[in-house]
Amino acid sequence: MTRSQLIQEIKSKRSFLCVGLDTDITKIPSFLLDYPDPVFEFNKRIIEATEDLCVAYKPNIAFYESRGLKGWESLQKTWEILPRNCFSIADAKRGDIGNTASMYARAFFDEASSGLGFDSITVAPYMGRDSVEPFIGFADKWAIVLALTSNDGSADFQNFSDKEGVQLFEKVIQQTNSWGTPENLMYVVGATRGEAFTNIRKYAPDHFLLVPGVGAQGGSLEDVCCYGMNSDCGLLVNATRSIIYASNGSDFAEKARQEALRLQQDMEQELIKAHII
Amino acid sequence: MTRSQLIQEIKSKRSFLCVGLDTDITKIPSFLLDYPDPVFEFNKRIIEATEDLCVAYKPNIAFYESRGLKGWESLQKTWEILPRNCFSIADAKRGDIGNTASMYARAFFDEASSGLGFDSITVAPYMGRDSVEPFIGFADKWAIVLALTSNDGSADFQNFSDKEGVQLFEKVIQQTNSWGTPENLMYVVGATRGEAFTNIRKYAPDHFLLVPGVGAQGGSLEDVCCYGMNSDCGLLVNATRSIIYASNGSDFAEKARQEALRLQQDMEQELIKAHII
Repeated sequence: MTRSQLIQEIKSKRSFLCVGLDTDITKIPSFLLDYPDPVFEFNKRIIEATEDLCVAYKPNIAFYESRGLKGWESLQKTWEILPRNCFSIADAKRGDIGNTASMYARAFFDEASSGLGFDSITVAPYMGRDSVEPFIGFADKWAIVLALTSNDGSADFQNFSDKEGVQLFEKVIQQTNSWGTPENLMYVVGATRGEAFTNIRKYAPDHFLLVPGVGAQGGSLEDVCCYGMNSDCGLLVNATRSIIYASNGSDFAEKARQEALRLQQDMEQELIKAHII
Repeated sequence: MTRSQLIQEIKSKRSFLCVGLDTDITKIPSFLLDYPDPVFEFNKRIIEATEDLCVAYKPNIAFYESRGLKGWESLQKTWEILPRNCFSIADAKRGDIGNTASMYARAFFDEASSGLGFDSITVAPYMGRDSVEPFIGFADKWAIVLALTSNDGSADFQNFSDKEGVQLFEKVIQQTNSWGTPENLMYVVGATRGEAFTNIRKYAPDHFLLVPGVGAQGGSLEDVCCYGMNSDCGLLVNATRSIIYASNGSDFAEKARQEALRLQQDMEQELIKAHII
């Protein structure tokens, strides 16, 4: 998916919601366990209940990989039913050198090789340029580079700063910025730190930011939009647990829809406020 | 595998060789393509030809993942035949937050969950403490944290330094050091920079270091041992392409053995020089 197609979807759905598909087989409603592939069945119903309200889906690969071959099958079947007008994100946080990074790119981008053809993948920047570039060499595919994450340990290294006070996450944005463009590069920026967006927009005014941490993790949508939105929206805000685990009963899909709708309506207001729609 | 078991293997095999199983289906001898699982067949013969000469095997997961379900099957079958007296390393470079990192730990450590039960996994430190700790919570399992890698882009961020001149890779070793012990934590340190080992040993005198970059990537075994060996050896030196692609013909396993033997003999000399055997 291209940048302009993504912007078009945001305007048409009046939403910049990304639904995380971190599907844990121990947390899904128990009646689904009678199906041959409970994780796929769960995902299918979540997707059907939310696809008109969100513009992206983001399975975290760890949840599938933890179940070995069975998990990989659930992931592949889920990818196959992801609506093609939604931006698909393999939240894999891969990062390896040159020829190996190319293998990871094939794993998530090249359907003929792996059975998966996601639009984008999250990438860890620690190993530098040759760990990021192989992902942006594919037409209409994206690398989403970890910059400032929303977890407890994020400060351990991401805030490490040089003698001019530049922090590692800023250095990552500055540097990777010169390797790709806003057409093939996004950044992960956690929502728990609204004011940090101002700083990030100095380095990456035009890039899309993938924002976890709204909702369950305590970030405020209003703050994120106030400090992080640009004239193309430039945000994909992810919600996972608050949507997919909104209920543990047979009404889980309906409750997921209600929560996605609530977020979509808030997002619509933000898009109107910013004169984007 | 425990640290003392690993040291025992090193002394008994007179080797600290790790063989990388980065098996690319486009590079293996063509006659193997007639087998139902050519990658597994290749790995099986490489393992049979080298298992008395090395103490560790390290499949890079990207090479398997790039082939989707088929690749995951090859990986699982390969794991099943890895000799249990060899240290097994899932070179996966995973890194994600708390509960997700636990999922990755299950993916590579918990055979009941995923079909894989490696001794260790390589881990990217960018996300901090909660991205590393879940891997060291398993009995006799190890996290091998990326510190200073041997690729072209390694300087982009790993040499980023604070006002006291401490570089990011040093900060990573200092910090992670307080989260684990030399019994459950190792570091990846590229061999292309022999003198860097002196500095690393200041921060991690007792830890094992996993050292890629000897051979095909140009690092010198003698330099690595001179600057990096400790009284328990403390090194696992990896070679991949020089061994597994030593020949592209029907003699590939024999040639792999010859190259592994050459490295084992050099390592034996280093172990004798250091009075470890």
